[in-house]
Amino acid sequence: MSQPATLRSWVASANGHADFPLQNLPLGVFSLPGSAPRSGVAIGEQIFDLEAALELGLFEGQAKAAVEATRGGQLNAFFELGSAARVALRARLLELLGESSSLRGKIEAQGAKLLPLAADCQLHLPARIGDYTDFYVGIEHAQNVGKLFRPDNPLLPNYKYVPIGYHGRASTVRPSGSEVRRPKGQTLPAGQSEPSFGPCARLDYELELGIWIGRGNAMGESIAIGDAAEHIAGFCLLNDWSARDIQAWEYQPLGPFLSKSFITSVSPWVVTAEALEPFRQAQPARPQGDPQPLPYLFDTRDQQGGAFDIELEVLLLTEAMREQNLPAQRLTLSNTRHMYWTVAQLVAHHSVNGCQLQAGDLFGSGTLSGPEAGQFGSLLEITEGGKKPVELATGEVRKFLEDGDEIILRARCRREGFASIGFGECRGKIVPAR
Amino acid sequence: MSQPATLRSWVASANGHADFPLQNLPLGVFSLPGSAPRSGVAIGEQIFDLEAALELGLFEGQAKAAVEATRGGQLNAFFELGSAARVALRARLLELLGESSSLRGKIEAQGAKLLPLAADCQLHLPARIGDYTDFYVGIEHAQNVGKLFRPDNPLLPNYKYVPIGYHGRASTVRPSGSEVRRPKGQTLPAGQSEPSFGPCARLDYELELGIWIGRGNAMGESIAIGDAAEHIAGFCLLNDWSARDIQAWEYQPLGPFLSKSFITSVSPWVVTAEALEPFRQAQPARPQGDPQPLPYLFDTRDQQGGAFDIELEVLLLTEAMREQNLPAQRLTLSNTRHMYWTVAQLVAHHSVNGCQLQAGDLFGSGTLSGPEAGQFGSLLEITEGGKKPVELATGEVRKFLEDGDEIILRARCRREGFASIGFGECRGKIVPAR
Repeated sequence: MSQPATLRSWVASANGHADFPLQNLPLGVFSLPGSAPRSGVAIGEQIFDLEAALELGLFEGQAKAAVEATRGGQLNAFFELGSAARVALRARLLELLGESSSLRGKIEAQGAKLLPLAADCQLHLPARIGDYTDFYVGIEHAQNVGKLFRPDNPLLPNYKYVPIGYHGRASTVRPSGSEVRRPKGQTLPAGQSEPSFGPCARLDYELELGIWIGRGNAMGESIAIGDAAEHIAGFCLLNDWSARDIQAWEYQPLGPFLSKSFITSVSPWVVTAEALEPFRQAQPARPQGDPQPLPYLFDTRDQQGGAFDIELEVLLLTEAMREQNLPAQRLTLSNTRHMYWTVAQLVAHHSVNGCQLQAGDLFGSGTLSGPEAGQFGSLLEITEGGKKPVELATGEVRKFLEDGDEIILRARCRREGFASIGFGECRGKIVPAR
Repeated sequence: MSQPATLRSWVASANGHADFPLQNLPLGVFSLPGSAPRSGVAIGEQIFDLEAALELGLFEGQAKAAVEATRGGQLNAFFELGSAARVALRARLLELLGESSSLRGKIEAQGAKLLPLAADCQLHLPARIGDYTDFYVGIEHAQNVGKLFRPDNPLLPNYKYVPIGYHGRASTVRPSGSEVRRPKGQTLPAGQSEPSFGPCARLDYELELGIWIGRGNAMGESIAIGDAAEHIAGFCLLNDWSARDIQAWEYQPLGPFLSKSFITSVSPWVVTAEALEPFRQAQPARPQGDPQPLPYLFDTRDQQGGAFDIELEVLLLTEAMREQNLPAQRLTLSNTRHMYWTVAQLVAHHSVNGCQLQAGDLFGSGTLSGPEAGQFGSLLEITEGGKKPVELATGEVRKFLEDGDEIILRARCRREGFASIGFGECRGKIVPAR
């Protein structure tokens, strides 16, 4: 399925595009001013309007059924169709938008009706999210955070057996660009025995990979790890905004709650497994002494190619940077290679108890930090809990995020002989507490 | 709004009915064989078909708008309307079904079309659940469970300040009568350092009050405690089935996950605040030395009348009892008085960070145990973690639930001068692991 770098589109902005070359073709939901949300595909600086293309009769067979399932401003029904429909749609899009497309003229004649500029378009959540689950599979992050609380024993005994996860809040997942209102809540000030109430003073980001669930399973049935791919619709970037002071006070014994539920931001484009195919790799060998996964979490093919090499980046743009016309400053450069468990292992684990997954459910990977400075996926790790502020190019310092700060997540896949693939941005700007 | 015991219905089975006298009028969604789910009201042994009554022209004004919002097999739109619509509907139902109804003849002439026997009807979830949140406000339960893990320090320091809660799984909430498939998962056998995989061996129930959320709030805005009533649509019974062995191994550091997400059962009828009005009471005084609630959790009216006196009961029916025609045996008799926080406090807390609540969201109270033997809301507490098995009338013993066991939750409100109000049952029978 993977396409070489030489493949080109007649949509000029797609060729060499950092995020959305012809090889990517991520799906999403967009709207033009005054019209209802509809499905589209990012191509260079434009969006190919799937519903308009359907009306033009550009699809037939399985690809047509796939596009029909994307209608209504939510991709859930498309996700539910599974991989065959997705692959058929991709094949047809490669024909339609490829350099030698016989339909180029017909499409170009429709102009902005079929290919509006992405800049004009508002992007929406791609699906109605039934349930959102946040995992904790970035082992470097788990170690970094564990060290802050338990210096001698950063990883708990279950970590290398159980893909740790917890239920998140689905109602507050929002697409990139949505404002991030600083939450209020209870915190226990240092040295005090009684909590205070007020705006969060330790607001943080978390760099995560998001996973959109495809076909669901019946309640009471499990998804075997070898079948997991059929149940994964695609990928995005996810910022699990975190109020560290609220979290520290509330999270025992049942886990994070209001410290996370005020907003979770995702990049709006669903990048498919097909687009990411060239960037698959073997799951990194477990360090000596680590246990092997239990049988329900072990699949040879998954071990050999279930991991991804996706570069992940976090940038900070402060009010001062905007005023001085400075570019956003990088805080983190990490990679999905730091996942201790593969995405297939997450699907198998989540459903092993018979829990029903549904098309449009969202998983977060957990924060994906690397082991070294510059690779930490949250300010909690970068500043060691606020003890070592970051110095910015403007001369400003940050322990945690301030009002007006904007966090930008990006992802990039690179490999010799293949076009680079990106995810688009996941942005969020902090606005003051109410 | 509350109606005295003397109020009678011309529906004969309603008068003196333990659960559904005319004073209750809970809403739900039911279906007859071969027809689509629709809204109805429980009255004695029958269901008043709201959609059929709407077609007959029995409603007008606000009550009509309320019934229109119940159409489509989900009460979400009705919940979103808030209390005025609900109160108008109740007033009209009291007229229609009251002893001196001028429309009795018209309704009776329709026979089973308007009043099918509940026994013929399948009951469904009353709403599409966006998010499900489980709280932990049964302080006796928190103390009993805390003692098992931390004998000297059963309650964590945050317990009396924070209404502790966590996100649950919405996709596996099911109505009473749905089978409970024993989950499989990882557990750490006593004395071992490596986990095993297999069927849960410590399957348990948890007796909870369920709360259906009414009108939602915009993201970023909080619901003031004084406004919480407008955001509560009604109440049900909730069994938070728990796999104790899976829970013990997985829950650190992010809370319960697969140990709870295999199923959560609810009673299907939505009992309204109006029906429960006579059973409101002052929030029990906090023991000397306990802190006062923070201002966002404090409201004088809520302190004076925000708690409920609802008797809660758990019964166990084993295979042997069924074979011997023995009645189900009571395991627990408790009361909602054991909630350390009121329902209004839960709503205010959940939204204080700007988290968006939506009509049809579901809250669980947490297990509502009393302080004494016979009042414990889970087998974990009754058997002290399996150390002291319960002896049953059949001569059987139980540490935890076995395949074939059925758990039945019931609730009853009693007060001199008022009709008794019930919730109907919340049942679930264990079927073997796959």
